[in-house]
Amino acid sequence: MDSPKASAARKALGFIKDGMVVGLGSGSTAALFIEMLGGKKLDVACVATSHDARAIAVRAGLCLAELDQVKGIDVAVDGADLVDPSRNLIKGMGGALAREKVVDYLAKKFVCVVDESKMKPDFRGIVPVEVIPFAASPVAREIAGEFGAKVSVRCGCGKCGPIVTDNGNWIIDAGFGKVANPGRLESGLQCIPGVVANGIFTRNRPVVVVGGKDRAKVLE
Amino acid sequence: MDSPKASAARKALGFIKDGMVVGLGSGSTAALFIEMLGGKKLDVACVATSHDARAIAVRAGLCLAELDQVKGIDVAVDGADLVDPSRNLIKGMGGALAREKVVDYLAKKFVCVVDESKMKPDFRGIVPVEVIPFAASPVAREIAGEFGAKVSVRCGCGKCGPIVTDNGNWIIDAGFGKVANPGRLESGLQCIPGVVANGIFTRNRPVVVVGGKDRAKVLE
Repeated sequence: MDSPKASAARKALGFIKDGMVVGLGSGSTAALFIEMLGGKKLDVACVATSHDARAIAVRAGLCLAELDQVKGIDVAVDGADLVDPSRNLIKGMGGALAREKVVDYLAKKFVCVVDESKMKPDFRGIVPVEVIPFAASPVAREIAGEFGAKVSVRCGCGKCGPIVTDNGNWIIDAGFGKVANPGRLESGLQCIPGVVANGIFTRNRPVVVVGGKDRAKVLE
Repeated sequence: MDSPKASAARKALGFIKDGMVVGLGSGSTAALFIEMLGGKKLDVACVATSHDARAIAVRAGLCLAELDQVKGIDVAVDGADLVDPSRNLIKGMGGALAREKVVDYLAKKFVCVVDESKMKPDFRGIVPVEVIPFAASPVAREIAGEFGAKVSVRCGCGKCGPIVTDNGNWIIDAGFGKVANPGRLESGLQCIPGVVANGIFTRNRPVVVVGGKDRAKVLE
């Protein structure tokens, strides 16, 4: 019997056909998808959105490519931390938001795999913002002052101080109350000097696969 | 007798007072300013926009700070590659555009020091775009396809292949014909996933100091 995350990942396999270029998301649900995709032995090329996703793909025996080796992404399969009723997303608790946004926005079809706990009635919560370390202080001040968020530079474990992303940057976690216009906030955050990417995904509307116990529903 | 660049740099010294936090731009004219500022022995703290500017400031005996050590930037003095009649700028031929934009946009007063060769009637030319290396190919394709620019990944000398910025990224040089709305292009480029910064500066309108032989004029 599949867990909710596994049933979402299994359902997403149905979007993948021989000959496709597949974007591989990061995080626990995407990891299940990558492992299952390896088991299918399809003729696909995969672009990974993190060192973590890449390592899982290597172990699963998938064929990997970089973005200069492919013409585009046919389908990207990636998780999310929040999905609102309009299928706006918050992503990036795994710290891979910058590469995820490149791949997910490039995809002709973006399939977002989540369990039901990620479906929320309102767009609110912690939005990760990747910044060049040089700019962390003024970016945090501007997000707090101009955008009204509660901000902190993300620390983790395994090293002292801020976590460093796969791109060599830091992450500011910005806590927002209910956001009326996520698309505007996405653009607004992106235009703060020093910001590399932010975890609001509104521009390539995904097919959302919501996993439950042994079944999954598709929202599009 | 001062060269045009030196006369612009010398004029910019007049904007600096004891107690200020000063942003130090990158490039040949900014370098002259940094050296002259060191000679003035003022009580200022300086934030450098590149490893190069920082090294010049160290040699000039200036007191340096990072952005988490200051409340803001009182005056930033920085060069430009193009200044149009509305004082929109193109910057970044020196590869320091990302940190320059952080500091120049943060400044209460932004003083742009140039010689007359940088003053142009139209906004057109090569706009540098800093990207995370992972995204260079799709970003270049989007700038060429959606924005109509001629693009190339910047190579230099001293290493094979692409130059790597002080932030660990690459630069795409995007050649544009006459741009009617530079502010819109600045935002549009910034919202391509994988873009860290672009060399269009329209949002913190500078005082422009234009150096000529032994004299400089101020446009504001």
